[in-house]
Amino acid sequence: MSLPGSPEAVEQEVLDANHDFYRALQALDLGQMEAVWLHEDWVKCLHPGWDLMIGWEEVRESWENIFRSTSQMRVTISRPLTDVVGEAAWVSCLENVTSLFEGGFSIAHVEATNIFVRRDGRWKMVYRHAAPLPEAPSGAGTTVQ
Amino acid sequence: MSLPGSPEAVEQEVLDANHDFYRALQALDLGQMEAVWLHEDWVKCLHPGWDLMIGWEEVRESWENIFRSTSQMRVTISRPLTDVVGEAAWVSCLENVTSLFEGGFSIAHVEATNIFVRRDGRWKMVYRHAAPLPEAPSGAGTTVQ
Repeated sequence: MSLPGSPEAVEQEVLDANHDFYRALQALDLGQMEAVWLHEDWVKCLHPGWDLMIGWEEVRESWENIFRSTSQMRVTISRPLTDVVGEAAWVSCLENVTSLFEGGFSIAHVEATNIFVRRDGRWKMVYRHAAPLPEAPSGAGTTVQ
Repeated sequence: MSLPGSPEAVEQEVLDANHDFYRALQALDLGQMEAVWLHEDWVKCLHPGWDLMIGWEEVRESWENIFRSTSQMRVTISRPLTDVVGEAAWVSCLENVTSLFEGGFSIAHVEATNIFVRRDGRWKMVYRHAAPLPEAPSGAGTTVQ
């Protein structure tokens, strides 16, 4: 166990917030996703292959659309690395995403940067840059229909 | 002019640091690039299509390799957006990169997230995630040989 407030404990808090994001993503649960993000007009999200979403309204709507068009998702992450600078922190990790939707499925390898800020003692996601790895098959990955 | 220390002035400082990065990149100048980055073992850089570089030594070496193999580079950026949280800040922008190297050239459209921290009053780059846009031609862009 790390001492509360130690750098290791704070890093773990950030990793826990990052984990909550992936749990919400895999559950396709908008309520959980809402709890992960800061609801302000400056937050930003770059889904793989999409234009940048700016502000919580746009970000929320994009998750709603993704969750509506996806019937199942499995996400494993590897190599999570965290840096904390005051009330801001970011996680770099690799995602292995298998999505099942009407008509097929896709497998994508994604490089992600997730940025969090601490508000009232809780780390909230404020920025996400998710980009498919260039070596992955074109765009969303392999699709079998 | 913004008042010194105002949110607008601080955002401008970050945008100036971001501009210095692109000036160093376009000049293929390792000295300028060294001045942009924080020289610590936790900084990270994800060049388009590369594995993550961790620590200033690796990051510096990667720039050295890129600059050595490139004879000319033109970079224009668009839609720079900045968020500042205490001593940390990040810029999201789109890059249009034309590289000339032995045997050909490439044109790449890149989505970038550049993170800075303020040390001794100066904003230093500590993290960069640069990923080619999926709609760009395969990998590094169009190559004519």
